[in-house]
Amino acid sequence: MNYPGGVKKETKVNSIISHSNRGMTLEADLNITNEYYRDIDKAYIYKKPTPIKITKVDYPSRVEAVIKEAFFTVPSTTDYNGIYKGKYIDFEAKETKSKTSFSLNNIHKHQIEHLKNINRHGGIAFLIVRFTVLNETYLLEITKLLDFINKEDRKSIPISYFKNNAYLIKDNYRPRLDYLKIVDDLIGGI
Amino acid sequence: MNYPGGVKKETKVNSIISHSNRGMTLEADLNITNEYYRDIDKAYIYKKPTPIKITKVDYPSRVEAVIKEAFFTVPSTTDYNGIYKGKYIDFEAKETKSKTSFSLNNIHKHQIEHLKNINRHGGIAFLIVRFTVLNETYLLEITKLLDFINKEDRKSIPISYFKNNAYLIKDNYRPRLDYLKIVDDLIGGI
Repeated sequence: MNYPGGVKKETKVNSIISHSNRGMTLEADLNITNEYYRDIDKAYIYKKPTPIKITKVDYPSRVEAVIKEAFFTVPSTTDYNGIYKGKYIDFEAKETKSKTSFSLNNIHKHQIEHLKNINRHGGIAFLIVRFTVLNETYLLEITKLLDFINKEDRKSIPISYFKNNAYLIKDNYRPRLDYLKIVDDLIGGI
Repeated sequence: MNYPGGVKKETKVNSIISHSNRGMTLEADLNITNEYYRDIDKAYIYKKPTPIKITKVDYPSRVEAVIKEAFFTVPSTTDYNGIYKGKYIDFEAKETKSKTSFSLNNIHKHQIEHLKNINRHGGIAFLIVRFTVLNETYLLEITKLLDFINKEDRKSIPISYFKNNAYLIKDNYRPRLDYLKIVDDLIGGI
């Protein structure tokens, strides 16, 4: 159930419906939210395309090019980035079916390294983690993630750590998942 | 010769060798440059993956997933973005074989709209245009591009406009194409 980007969304939708109230994946919620932010000219944040390595292409003509063989590759960065209030925003979004913890295996080491670099250079860097069964979505700053990794030997972050160190993002109609409201607090606190 | 991202690079390399001194595409030069900037911890700027729509996937097991059919899609944003000195950087890079002008057909309307939005929100937005036959590479700020579009009816920007309104990026060994040197001047001038 952990295939990369484009495919994951389509294959997971049905299995999620039984767990959550709305039957939407985190990715779909974020896409709708980011589109809304753009519509009201609040922020310009996009999901990056799924990285693939193309090995075979048929192109009888320019407009008819069809990729005939390609492979999913490991992303070098995170899925989402953009600009808000003149600041560079960068985050990775992940879902887990666990009710008790979030496994660090869900994030690549170089993605953590990337978020660390962004934070050090003055950007706003975080994770958005959804516990699908609980229908709870958290924003966890990269600094809090690093604190955990430095202090703990555990390879998964218990939900209690999220409750105490992350911010719960509330579901809404518009925007669906108003994470920039939390970013406002983070910017204010800098 | 204008196929999207991943393919373009491979098919164009040979045809470029005869024109330029080094036989490298603009994309290859920018990738090397951005890698260098990351290595020296100066800036974190990446090329986004080529956007595609996946329609068929074989996955006998998770690690063996193979995309069997996919199509190139129109990018909603630009190819490159990232962070430098705490600022959001966003640009599109294009090559032309013309010696006299750069056709505006090379850039999608919504990419210009995107760069306009980024600029309005306090980001650094520009085009990098290489005249491959002349082996000249320019950085053109989005504001200068918009000036041209607003004042002129022509559908291509003459090279004289680049000479007078853009910045020539010099070739180097390391970094190969030091466009952040020019960004330093732009930031200084804000």
